Amino acid sequence: MHIDVLTLFPEMFTGVFQSSILRKATERGKFSYNLVNFRDYTDNKHNKVDDYPYGGGAGMVLSPQPVFDAVESITSENTKKPRIVLMCPQGETYSQTKAEELAKEDHLIFICGHYEGYDERIRENLVTDEISIGDYVLTGGELGAMVVVDSVVRLLPDVLGNKDSAPQDSFSTGLLEHPHYTRPADFRGMKVPDVLLSGNHAKIETWRKEQSLKRTYERRKDLLSSSDLSEEEKQLLNRIKGK
Amino acid sequence: MHIDVLTLFPEMFTGVFQSSILRKATERGKFSYNLVNFRDYTDNKHNKVDDYPYGGGAGMVLSPQPVFDAVESITSENTKKPRIVLMCPQGETYSQTKAEELAKEDHLIFICGHYEGYDERIRENLVTDEISIGDYVLTGGELGAMVVVDSVVRLLPDVLGNKDSAPQDSFSTGLLEHPHYTRPADFRGMKVPDVLLSGNHAKIETWRKEQSLKRTYERRKDLLSSSDLSEEEKQLLNRIKGK
Repeated sequence: MHIDVLTLFPEMFTGVFQSSILRKATERGKFSYNLVNFRDYTDNKHNKVDDYPYGGGAGMVLSPQPVFDAVESITSENTKKPRIVLMCPQGETYSQTKAEELAKEDHLIFICGHYEGYDERIRENLVTDEISIGDYVLTGGELGAMVVVDSVVRLLPDVLGNKDSAPQDSFSTGLLEHPHYTRPADFRGMKVPDVLLSGNHAKIETWRKEQSLKRTYERRKDLLSSSDLSEEEKQLLNRIKGK
Repeated sequence: MHIDVLTLFPEMFTGVFQSSILRKATERGKFSYNLVNFRDYTDNKHNKVDDYPYGGGAGMVLSPQPVFDAVESITSENTKKPRIVLMCPQGETYSQTKAEELAKEDHLIFICGHYEGYDERIRENLVTDEISIGDYVLTGGELGAMVVVDSVVRLLPDVLGNKDSAPQDSFSTGLLEHPHYTRPADFRGMKVPDVLLSGNHAKIETWRKEQSLKRTYERRKDLLSSSDLSEEEKQLLNRIKGK
């Protein structure tokens, strides 16, 4: 997969893109990226990429010209139009389902604004997707783009080893993870539950399922409605609710 | 505000923490940070910070010892216990309200796992908050911590100039932003709506409110129920629904 990121702050990305899974994916040839400072594409003689909003009001607005031109310079030799993702608070709330969808593409382009709004013509006539990573205000789209890139690239074939996958993959199962414990069995008087030391795998399995359901019930009831529970899980859940 | 980040990948943070608003906040003395590699605190002779899970299963689990010791080395001279935030998928879904709450603190500590689960004793006996930035799987807690730090630090007094604030602050008003336009009025045949060029400020104001309601209604109905609408807004909304 190739990813182009349009940003005024390319230096924000290097630490993240050159570490951990993204670095490994690059080294294995599964992921390549290009950081494009779209200020290089402005035809404004003062090198500006924004301007005052029509109709007045606070803040500046990102001009269409440098963004359109930067995207076109990237896609001019493409035979297939790539997905062009605008990071913005008005976008679709990002989810694991969306990550899985984007992971099927060969080429993604991310557009990151900073401080300010986008000229609506970028939204209407250039992009294919608008994504928000959550309901909070960030200074720019850069962190959102990094979040999407990390979550997508780790889904590509042969990127994650077995060692790296598992247990935090909460949102793939639809339930929150059960508690984990590792050595020592007694850490400053805080002990590991007996069942995990019992060696009884059937009991451990049941305990984990129950804990996972309990945690989801207590913290994220909204996830329970959308997850498909087995008969056994439904019975466990009823026991939890009855407590 | 001082922020300590416990991470195995401190190099991931530098590009983000040294750019834009976070850099300005540091230069103005509003924000200081320390990146703590908690591997430096392990008493494991092979420098390991994780181990196999009790009860079996895939993946590794972060050991309690290095994390407890790293936090204690930071807080040993504190008179007041800081907020200690665990970045994890099982946490409370992050929101602007939570950002505003954290922005009132003097000292925050973030704990970032990577690839793997946390020993439950960290969750139960060390942290004060558990945060998830959204329902998607990331490789580690680092990007989540950067997201929280950016959203919190920008709320501190005297960090954002007037220029930097506004228009993307969608989640502060409870509604999605109306469309923005800047020059040129005609970009490759794509035109700015006449009303914005009219100079009629009352009309512009009404158009913006209507567009903001329309966009929220079309994209994020869930936000409308929680936002307090004025009488005028309710009428505009009815008009939109009637279309």
